[in-house]
Amino acid sequence: MHPVVAVDLGGTNLRTAFYPQGAPPAERIHRFSLGVERGPQAVVAAIGDAVRGVAPAPFPAGLRVAVAAPGPLDPFKGVVLNAPNLPGWKDIPLRDDLEHLLGLPVRVGNDANLAALAEWQHGAGAGCDHLVYLTISTGIGGGVIVDGRLLVGGHGLAAELGHVPVVDDGPPCSCGRHGHLEAVASGKAIARRAAELLAQNPSSTLGGAGVGPLDAEKVGAAAREGDPLARRVFKEAGEAVGRALAGLLHVFNPQRIILGGGVARAGEVFWEPVRRALKAEVMDPAYLEGVELLPASLGDDAGLVGALVLANLP
Amino acid sequence: MHPVVAVDLGGTNLRTAFYPQGAPPAERIHRFSLGVERGPQAVVAAIGDAVRGVAPAPFPAGLRVAVAAPGPLDPFKGVVLNAPNLPGWKDIPLRDDLEHLLGLPVRVGNDANLAALAEWQHGAGAGCDHLVYLTISTGIGGGVIVDGRLLVGGHGLAAELGHVPVVDDGPPCSCGRHGHLEAVASGKAIARRAAELLAQNPSSTLGGAGVGPLDAEKVGAAAREGDPLARRVFKEAGEAVGRALAGLLHVFNPQRIILGGGVARAGEVFWEPVRRALKAEVMDPAYLEGVELLPASLGDDAGLVGALVLANLP
Repeated sequence: MHPVVAVDLGGTNLRTAFYPQGAPPAERIHRFSLGVERGPQAVVAAIGDAVRGVAPAPFPAGLRVAVAAPGPLDPFKGVVLNAPNLPGWKDIPLRDDLEHLLGLPVRVGNDANLAALAEWQHGAGAGCDHLVYLTISTGIGGGVIVDGRLLVGGHGLAAELGHVPVVDDGPPCSCGRHGHLEAVASGKAIARRAAELLAQNPSSTLGGAGVGPLDAEKVGAAAREGDPLARRVFKEAGEAVGRALAGLLHVFNPQRIILGGGVARAGEVFWEPVRRALKAEVMDPAYLEGVELLPASLGDDAGLVGALVLANLP
Repeated sequence: MHPVVAVDLGGTNLRTAFYPQGAPPAERIHRFSLGVERGPQAVVAAIGDAVRGVAPAPFPAGLRVAVAAPGPLDPFKGVVLNAPNLPGWKDIPLRDDLEHLLGLPVRVGNDANLAALAEWQHGAGAGCDHLVYLTISTGIGGGVIVDGRLLVGGHGLAAELGHVPVVDDGPPCSCGRHGHLEAVASGKAIARRAAELLAQNPSSTLGGAGVGPLDAEKVGAAAREGDPLARRVFKEAGEAVGRALAGLLHVFNPQRIILGGGVARAGEVFWEPVRRALKAEVMDPAYLEGVELLPASLGDDAGLVGALVLANLP
């Protein structure tokens, strides 16, 4: 096991942790505000500073760096192909740039793929061989364990589970297409749908003065307090997730489904319609037999722990 | 390699082949009309007769039997859980019944999974490690090779790729749900959609006297001859397949996609909209890089060859 600096590169935050023994728990976790609007080169420099900020100086022998980054990305080459939530990130050779900057070996993985790896090795997925993981926050990412291995595909681009079609004439998706699961059930989609319904029905508590711009967290809070409009928005999103999960059960026949991300933390207003639609939409009860539907257990650390696992893979 | 009797159990036909060396080509292929309306027990007896009809007597040493059967089925236990196209097939212990009847070791696999295995080992999928296979005939089945292994899932029920949602408020599916790919792009769906449009527009050549009940083959023939209604039906079905395939590219990132089954043999009236929609609906061109979209090469023998491969798996 190598000592590892794990990096989690998000849309608005950069987090790093130093794992001296190459295993959890992390010694220190640092959180940096990223300022992604500065563009890829400045962000690469910020990652370099963040790694130096969390690792001991001089670097311990065998130190490795692993980065969880938004996808789609090519993990074999460490290139971020296209990160819709990071402006200007298109074909960025993140691995090579960081290796050049730090003089350390660097690996790069899709953040949701790595979160799945983390939940499987150290979280809610421990002990099973077939697992589907969805993270539902601003966007929707995914990761799949097939027969005890992370599904990466021919070029490492696999498991973009947020980008499967679920409605034919659906709303636009962050990826530029339309009707994908992400376009109807992500945090962004929830906020947009709530605003749409609010325009038709301003009596909702969400329309109150001082509420400010809508986001999924606010809609979730209103739903938990019983606001009918907010409940309807979560019902629609949860049903779309349940229906997509039924499809993923037919495709992967996993033993466990794990849902992470902020939207999945909204509580029963989200989980109840997910469970109901999943049960209603599955083609045969055999697909549900023994299947556990669980919340992710690593919370915000999933990307870091996943990067740690990646750094120590053979 | 064991000598193998391969059995392909379809909705209307039963085919068997004897492979003396445990490898293609088959020595003899027999085709039997099945009479599936007789129910599972009569069909099991017919399979027994068919195996005896094609294998030498006495059975050669080490002879194995493998059956490609409609899914979903549990390949570990050899139980057909629910075959929508075989009336009365619900939780039928096909493997045990056949072993009892024949006194030979029997394996049972999902027909589309086995066809994928066959195309990968002996057909259009040879030489790649990541492959998505769809068979589009009366229904839609699938099989996936992930990293050089057949995807089977936790209970062996994986890769029912015809049963992924593609439209939200779509037509009923043979599985009892709705809006699945099978419900909009299978042979059955094509025939139904053509009949629907014909009722609104009886001037189509499909409405001519003596055409008889519509099926996908007739609609395909009319489409190739330029009938606008028939072309529209194939365009809609092809686009749905292309869109679903884009989702499967995001999920599996395969190196090759193989399409088999009667509908895929309809020619450019089908393939052109598939290719166009696939290209239009993919989230990033990286998913198409180096990806080949190919017709299946084993034709009607895919199930038999797949059963052969299954029989000789470790």
